[in-house]
Amino acid sequence: MSEKRKFELIKKSKQNNARLGKIYTSHGEINTPVFMPVGTQGTVKTLTPEELKGIGVEIILGNVYHLYLRPGDELIKEAGGLHKFMNWQGPILTDSGGYQVFSLAELRKITEEHVEFKSHIDGSSQFLDPEKVIQIQTNLGSDIMMSFDECIPYPCEYDYARQAMERTLRWSGRCKQAYINKNIEEQLLFGITQGGTYKDLRKKSIEGTIEIGFDGYAIGGLSVGEPKDLMFEILNDTMTIFPEDKPRYLMGIGTPVDLWECIELGVDMFDCVMPTRNARNGQVFTSRGKLVIKNAKHKRDFRPLDLECDCYTCRNYTRAYLQHLFNAKEILALKLNTLHNLHFMIQLIFKIRRAIQEDKFLEEKKKFLDKYMNMD
Amino acid sequence: MSEKRKFELIKKSKQNNARLGKIYTSHGEINTPVFMPVGTQGTVKTLTPEELKGIGVEIILGNVYHLYLRPGDELIKEAGGLHKFMNWQGPILTDSGGYQVFSLAELRKITEEHVEFKSHIDGSSQFLDPEKVIQIQTNLGSDIMMSFDECIPYPCEYDYARQAMERTLRWSGRCKQAYINKNIEEQLLFGITQGGTYKDLRKKSIEGTIEIGFDGYAIGGLSVGEPKDLMFEILNDTMTIFPEDKPRYLMGIGTPVDLWECIELGVDMFDCVMPTRNARNGQVFTSRGKLVIKNAKHKRDFRPLDLECDCYTCRNYTRAYLQHLFNAKEILALKLNTLHNLHFMIQLIFKIRRAIQEDKFLEEKKKFLDKYMNMD
Repeated sequence: MSEKRKFELIKKSKQNNARLGKIYTSHGEINTPVFMPVGTQGTVKTLTPEELKGIGVEIILGNVYHLYLRPGDELIKEAGGLHKFMNWQGPILTDSGGYQVFSLAELRKITEEHVEFKSHIDGSSQFLDPEKVIQIQTNLGSDIMMSFDECIPYPCEYDYARQAMERTLRWSGRCKQAYINKNIEEQLLFGITQGGTYKDLRKKSIEGTIEIGFDGYAIGGLSVGEPKDLMFEILNDTMTIFPEDKPRYLMGIGTPVDLWECIELGVDMFDCVMPTRNARNGQVFTSRGKLVIKNAKHKRDFRPLDLECDCYTCRNYTRAYLQHLFNAKEILALKLNTLHNLHFMIQLIFKIRRAIQEDKFLEEKKKFLDKYMNMD
Repeated sequence: MSEKRKFELIKKSKQNNARLGKIYTSHGEINTPVFMPVGTQGTVKTLTPEELKGIGVEIILGNVYHLYLRPGDELIKEAGGLHKFMNWQGPILTDSGGYQVFSLAELRKITEEHVEFKSHIDGSSQFLDPEKVIQIQTNLGSDIMMSFDECIPYPCEYDYARQAMERTLRWSGRCKQAYINKNIEEQLLFGITQGGTYKDLRKKSIEGTIEIGFDGYAIGGLSVGEPKDLMFEILNDTMTIFPEDKPRYLMGIGTPVDLWECIELGVDMFDCVMPTRNARNGQVFTSRGKLVIKNAKHKRDFRPLDLECDCYTCRNYTRAYLQHLFNAKEILALKLNTLHNLHFMIQLIFKIRRAIQEDKFLEEKKKFLDKYMNMD
């Protein structure tokens, strides 16, 4: 491991476990807490890199599973890496594919060695293992690589959850070894912890993963169907086990409310397809809660989506126009909604950072939720 | 009619009938020859108004037929007109709906009074007549309105072609009267000539339409299936009947080659869905002819679409990336292709204008076609 600084803890809230930090990558710094838009297939759906930058996005996600299958990580390597291929010059985190194998692929077969599966694109037989996942992420050239994990469903028997967690630990070890062998310090490697909804397994997973040693630690396998309170409980009980001097990444989460709740518990990084996917389904965030653009009441509403928003969409278009575009199945609708929703998430993160900085987290959280949960 | 200048003939080519001109509208000037991207439903598919402006678009099209049916011209009037509704501050021309009733609607019934039809959106019974079409375009607030016409198919019996042409003349007269009654001089009104592929009918239609008197004259009902040579022949035989001091608009045309051919014959204005529609189907224009982005040979081609193009797409993305996006059904593919194709058409118009200005039309046309028709 290099002694170069990769994470800096800048401030701890006086009110709770919320923190401000900075991650250093070869494509620039990332301030934390951070929300990472998902760019599954080498593009954050509907938006250009310039548009992402324009709304303050600091880092985006790519997916090993998707990019390995199409267009192939070797093609992307030939293109000069994922940054150059997709024209995004900021930091990129790539997910290792564990979750996608679990949620998308067909006919999975998990052994100690690897996972075999059939591609959801063409049905071809494929496999991923820890070494291959590191190789793919090396080819992609992502700034933050994730270790390979086994993601279990909810509910899940204790015994299987334990086996999967232990296998994930062994795979994490193999990922770390493959990473060391490659001598690719310009890329950070994060470990993923598992354990389902069993607190003792979660603790063992975290301790074991820390023992292997990574540049950051992710919490995987949550928000897969378990009650939300149970998720918060697990986070609350386990967050303090993570070392203070490493970033903590809660994978696949979350809603605006989740962000407040989880940052309060000490989470630094988030990703979620929800803001972009909802946008394409015509659901947008506003400071007064969610708004469904198809609703009849917006037909002649010549106000912006959110009166308090200054994004491109809200500065230039009305709810009436956005409903028309959406009903007419116009592609521009999807882009304008996406731009708005991501802007909302990024502005929310900015607001939360300021609240931590000024030790006003609890007051600002209450103010936000009072308005957001009491939509008119 | 106001005496305010609405069209200025700036230069006539010394080599042929090509001309340079300027149309004055309340939303700015339009240089001619001009290519008008089609924004059927209140948006040029996939692009923002800023992107259109960025590639040099001077005027866009809207459609009475579509906007009347959805979201409704009265709603758009309430929104402050089509410019404000869609956030486009440049000139807008609206087509009268004649062609769409002919090509899209079901169960048409044409009488002297009006056209009855069933909406292609919800099957509801609707009608359009000359007075209504002027009312709708007044509500939309377009800078250039089109008169209502009857568009016939190809081939078409002489007798029906004559009847439809004569009806179109009477409808043009009613449009003109409705326009005068409304006293809306800030909007220009163009007449549409018809006559199918019969030259005598075309001549009668043009003479009759000129007699009524409009701010510009359109040639409708071409490129509906007739051989291309026949279209050029008709244009060649009838173009000189049009007054020199009014713009001439060839509706629904055309390809890059068509632009050279028809401008040479004296056409000033064009619109066509082809550049935008082809883009969404993965067909793009290049200086060496059409390129189909899905073709296997582009899979590892890390060059831009067109080596001579400086559009946003060509400056930032490779054929390999665009093929990947297209295969992955990513919306960004459609936008990047559209931006490129419209940029190509606008740059082509700029090139043709310069050629007319410098009296090098024939040389430049040959240079362009030699390269465009001999793609490698």
